[in-house]
Amino acid sequence: MEKPYVLGIDIGGQTAKSGVVNARGEVLAQTILVSNNHQDARDFVEALAQTLRKLISDAGLNGQIRGIGVGAPNGNYYTGEIKDAPNLSWAHEKNIPFAKMLSEAMDGLPVALTNDANAAAVGEMTYGAAKGFKDFIMITLGTGVGSGIVIDGKVVYGHDGFAGELGHTCAVRGGRSCNCGKQGCLEAYCSAIGVARSAQEWLEQHPEEPTLLRLRENITSKDVYEAAKAGDKAAKEIFEFTGTLLGRSFADFVAFSAPEAIVLFGGLARAKEFLYEPIVNAMNENLLSLWRGKVKVLFSSLSESDAAILGASALAWDI
Amino acid sequence: MEKPYVLGIDIGGQTAKSGVVNARGEVLAQTILVSNNHQDARDFVEALAQTLRKLISDAGLNGQIRGIGVGAPNGNYYTGEIKDAPNLSWAHEKNIPFAKMLSEAMDGLPVALTNDANAAAVGEMTYGAAKGFKDFIMITLGTGVGSGIVIDGKVVYGHDGFAGELGHTCAVRGGRSCNCGKQGCLEAYCSAIGVARSAQEWLEQHPEEPTLLRLRENITSKDVYEAAKAGDKAAKEIFEFTGTLLGRSFADFVAFSAPEAIVLFGGLARAKEFLYEPIVNAMNENLLSLWRGKVKVLFSSLSESDAAILGASALAWDI
Repeated sequence: MEKPYVLGIDIGGQTAKSGVVNARGEVLAQTILVSNNHQDARDFVEALAQTLRKLISDAGLNGQIRGIGVGAPNGNYYTGEIKDAPNLSWAHEKNIPFAKMLSEAMDGLPVALTNDANAAAVGEMTYGAAKGFKDFIMITLGTGVGSGIVIDGKVVYGHDGFAGELGHTCAVRGGRSCNCGKQGCLEAYCSAIGVARSAQEWLEQHPEEPTLLRLRENITSKDVYEAAKAGDKAAKEIFEFTGTLLGRSFADFVAFSAPEAIVLFGGLARAKEFLYEPIVNAMNENLLSLWRGKVKVLFSSLSESDAAILGASALAWDI
Repeated sequence: MEKPYVLGIDIGGQTAKSGVVNARGEVLAQTILVSNNHQDARDFVEALAQTLRKLISDAGLNGQIRGIGVGAPNGNYYTGEIKDAPNLSWAHEKNIPFAKMLSEAMDGLPVALTNDANAAAVGEMTYGAAKGFKDFIMITLGTGVGSGIVIDGKVVYGHDGFAGELGHTCAVRGGRSCNCGKQGCLEAYCSAIGVARSAQEWLEQHPEEPTLLRLRENITSKDVYEAAKAGDKAAKEIFEFTGTLLGRSFADFVAFSAPEAIVLFGGLARAKEFLYEPIVNAMNENLLSLWRGKVKVLFSSLSESDAAILGASALAWDI
């Protein structure tokens, strides 16, 4: 096969992970670049292109790369732009024509770009837990809550390329303020940061009750997870609250697109043992009877370090 | 053109409206059959087939009908079945293989079936306010609240054929009980029946305040509309409440599929003058900034008597 490899790049708030991937979905080589210390987009793209050239060359694959797939916060599949991504210093309050810039820096290699959750959905459908599914919803539980919606085998981009912002649907009317400026968003409760906020609230509301969490300063969702694993009642309650809100929202998502499954991915999805039951229970309680007990809730089966790269790379096969 | 006509049938809880439609979307002839006095589905299908044969023959179009499109409550596009439709006496708690039965009764004419809201969406896209739109959401405000979702020019049917039950997403957590058995559904507030319930609640909560509504027994949404037109403050407040709930929900729908427009249809949509502003205001308040002020809220431009028939008939061109 001519040019049998693709590059997958996952751009996050801290790092950009890049990998060379073959058609079987194996990451043959990968590399990491810090993504938050660049003055502007041009700086970052140049540093990234240099990294990619070295990656290709070290792997002995010069001239054999077919294209590049990129997953990035607020990435727009239609325009190839990154639009006002608050977590990227070089893309804050700007529209960056990222796909075009990267393609130029890589001697015209074609570049496809989408947001990180859509990339994860494509990866999951091509290589992971959603293999063979034509209708599913990917929910990424990381620093934020992202989503990639697949209907009839295709990612939903919508009229403007920004469909699938389920982290900013309303979970609690008039609830916590969210980074986006609205109130009560699912992301304000069910992201890693949301779980940490829930822990903080729990401590304030239960000043007398003993919990391992009280020993921590600046509680993170990881602290809550570790406390829950150690049997801490408060930590378990916090996950139950988180899972219940997720399940309620999932019921509404099911009423929209009637998916076969909802697939969870991201750091917080590691707390599967504490989240699964409350999610499934709350979802079924809030579903129309025709769907009750029928919609699968799955956790990504891709290894986390590879998944983001695979997801992004899967885009590049279709360019 | 060979066989240049189709039949469109809209089955409701009281009547089934049938019409002959040409490729320009003109209803050339139509007829009505009572739909709620039949013992079983076979009875109804036979009566319907008789009506259709007469309609075709009276119009002088024997042998010129290409196919039949049917919109029916709980109609499933994939299976051609009507599944447990609570408002149809002959389909209650049963699965009726309606498309197959009607095709057999009509000498093998092909029959396509979907739910009434999806049919309305297809009609709106083919002939109405959504002409030229590839991404929009149709909301039908009738006895219930139905929805038809169009993404990239296609109606979303989902994994099982039942996608688009937005009337049963949660509008008020723990709110009013809904016919479906759940609580707080959009339909429990924003259908014709929901508006009547809101009026009843308003009267109970404001025992002293004067309003035209107090003069009515068994208030209907039509009473509320007429009172609002006469300048009644309470009636206007009830529409403002209804519109606000709709707008909030629409914001979440937009976050899902990023449509170009939301199109409203059905009896209650006639109250456009009282609903439009609260809908648009509440929607924009609850949208991410990237969509604020950009998503159109439209009211169906199809004449109501034709719209349901046209919507159903549009299905038949693609059989």
